[in-house]
Amino acid sequence: MQLDPNGHPTSPRGFRAALHTCGIKVSGSPDLALLVSDRPSRWDAVFTTNAVAAAPVEFGRERLADGVPLRAILVNSGNANAVTGAQGLADARETAALLERSLEIPEGAALVSSTGVIGVPLPMDKIRHGVPAIAGLPVTDGGAAFARGIMTTDTRPKHASISVPHAGGMVTLGGCAKGAGMIHPRMATMLSYLTCDADVHPEVLGAAFRRCVESSYNRISVDGDTSTNDTCVLLANGAAGLPPILPGTTAADDFEQALRILTAHLSREIVRDGEGATTVVRLDVVGARDALQAELVARAVCNSPLVKTAIHGRDPNWGRILCAAGYAGAGVTPRSVDLSIQDVPVLVRGTPAVFDAPALSRAMRGEEVLIRLDLGQGTDTTTFWTCDFSAEYISINADYTT
Amino acid sequence: MQLDPNGHPTSPRGFRAALHTCGIKVSGSPDLALLVSDRPSRWDAVFTTNAVAAAPVEFGRERLADGVPLRAILVNSGNANAVTGAQGLADARETAALLERSLEIPEGAALVSSTGVIGVPLPMDKIRHGVPAIAGLPVTDGGAAFARGIMTTDTRPKHASISVPHAGGMVTLGGCAKGAGMIHPRMATMLSYLTCDADVHPEVLGAAFRRCVESSYNRISVDGDTSTNDTCVLLANGAAGLPPILPGTTAADDFEQALRILTAHLSREIVRDGEGATTVVRLDVVGARDALQAELVARAVCNSPLVKTAIHGRDPNWGRILCAAGYAGAGVTPRSVDLSIQDVPVLVRGTPAVFDAPALSRAMRGEEVLIRLDLGQGTDTTTFWTCDFSAEYISINADYTT
Repeated sequence: MQLDPNGHPTSPRGFRAALHTCGIKVSGSPDLALLVSDRPSRWDAVFTTNAVAAAPVEFGRERLADGVPLRAILVNSGNANAVTGAQGLADARETAALLERSLEIPEGAALVSSTGVIGVPLPMDKIRHGVPAIAGLPVTDGGAAFARGIMTTDTRPKHASISVPHAGGMVTLGGCAKGAGMIHPRMATMLSYLTCDADVHPEVLGAAFRRCVESSYNRISVDGDTSTNDTCVLLANGAAGLPPILPGTTAADDFEQALRILTAHLSREIVRDGEGATTVVRLDVVGARDALQAELVARAVCNSPLVKTAIHGRDPNWGRILCAAGYAGAGVTPRSVDLSIQDVPVLVRGTPAVFDAPALSRAMRGEEVLIRLDLGQGTDTTTFWTCDFSAEYISINADYTT
Repeated sequence: MQLDPNGHPTSPRGFRAALHTCGIKVSGSPDLALLVSDRPSRWDAVFTTNAVAAAPVEFGRERLADGVPLRAILVNSGNANAVTGAQGLADARETAALLERSLEIPEGAALVSSTGVIGVPLPMDKIRHGVPAIAGLPVTDGGAAFARGIMTTDTRPKHASISVPHAGGMVTLGGCAKGAGMIHPRMATMLSYLTCDADVHPEVLGAAFRRCVESSYNRISVDGDTSTNDTCVLLANGAAGLPPILPGTTAADDFEQALRILTAHLSREIVRDGEGATTVVRLDVVGARDALQAELVARAVCNSPLVKTAIHGRDPNWGRILCAAGYAGAGVTPRSVDLSIQDVPVLVRGTPAVFDAPALSRAMRGEEVLIRLDLGQGTDTTTFWTCDFSAEYISINADYTT
């Protein structure tokens, strides 16, 4: 089972995709992306936990409840269609209906997503021209273009695929993700679209999907801000023409493992492309009393501006890591804590260790910094991913709308 | 009742203070500050809620429980004596005992505080020379120097005083505070020392002190990091020679009002001097269902890097404010929310208002930005203070220890 970092959402059979520019972004960059499944596709989705959910998220929840097999997803970038009131929801509905007519697919078979600035009405005049135009464009190798079309402050597209032997054939999973800011691990995810050409039993699909989202997209942080538009969708259209993947089988385990590898890769790519990021931080919290303690501590450390600026300066200022663990509200007992950075012990049973700070600072200059925090209170563990905090994050975000 | 922004902890009678350089800071800046009460002083203190509390905080909690009247507080800057294990606590005890001998005051009458880098043992050789040296220096107008001695990344000292008529005379309250980073409103405070020459009944002292800390130091944020060393101490030594301030009297109300004005001023000065800050943000959350909802929303907005970078860019990007309110976990109902920036309505009952964005951006260029968030769900309110997030914050914190 080998990940292909050049794979994408149309690597699995029976999917096509396209990219278009309809003028939503003032920059003139592509702002519409369309993913089509040639046959009705089983699907599942998770959305933001933010109480201020965008119109397409509200609309998506309705569609998920309706349970109609999915045929198409249209994503616009440059405008989040969030906090746009009743008009925003009407605009999401109109866009989906227009897409269904343009693609000649059944009513209820289209999903829409939006990402970009909050609080500005969707420019429906542009959408009304753009949807019929993009409807004729999808091609079988369009998945990489689709991944480009959903970008905002991302510096590069993030997509991959993975194939699994099944019943004498191969099933393929593909996917892409976007998101560089407003990334915080209490979300569903930013935008991520996952595809699969297997015939996956709904029970396998739902359970594997939710577990994989929890261990990937819900374990990353760029800036601690949970977006209004987070959406992750998985489609399985059965186009591989192989027997179904049923609950309790080895095939179901293989499917979940492939999905785990794919979502782990894509979520890490989001962090690697975090706004202004120069390095990725892997935080292993071990020795926790329970899963909640591990998670609270990991979230506090990964969201601490002081930890993240220290990482940026390649400063092994471990006191800030322990400080963040301390204010996590998780009952950390300082005297039982072991801490290492890049495998160099800096704290042993709560007592500072002697280490070569300049050498450790040099060792932190790579693409990834590993922090291991052993709470010494139990056996639960978790792994989170975050990035450093640089001056570029400030300049990217200080004048986003003006 | 008028605040004197040039007043300080020795403005009240019966207090003296001094500043000394003993070599803890490599920069050669002053690093020892001593506050002395000429007579035994009633006192109260609140400390950090961080589970990783510094040695002087652990020691201070013991002293507060002992209840011995206070005569002196020694503060060292440049070293936090935090995460220094059993040795750290022994060092705090030794420092206090040395101070008591040097000043010839009773055992148990000295408090010590530390601020600076975490995880480095206190350089006791320097402390052992410094304490006897500073013990001979305190003078009655030394309060402003004391305020300088407790600084770390602060760019200026923060001190003030206020006088209140009482029983035909005047009682004076003085105080100072430090803190520019690792400031988050779930703390006791950073370091703040408050003095008063009134004879304040313990019940009045304790109740007024805790209420004032809650509405001032616990309502500010610079970076969302709660320090290991937060400490706020109030001393009342009775040196004014006036009748006591008793519970349930107008004098008690006047004392609390003066203390509220003083702590509000000092806490705001901390935010104004926040690391890299160029402007102060006042956030009024009104129309909340209850006090907890108001607080959760205010904390989320004040700690959002995206809100704080937008303020830095004078970008009226109100969507980020609403987004933060949404992920606060406080049950915000978007459709009932009104939002204004500098008194310009940007959102009315959940619907974006038409406003002149360039004009509003210009209006945000002053020393203070006012955000008013009406949740439209009830009548509870709270006010929080934070600052903007600038590239300078990153550079200050990227290489603090290296």
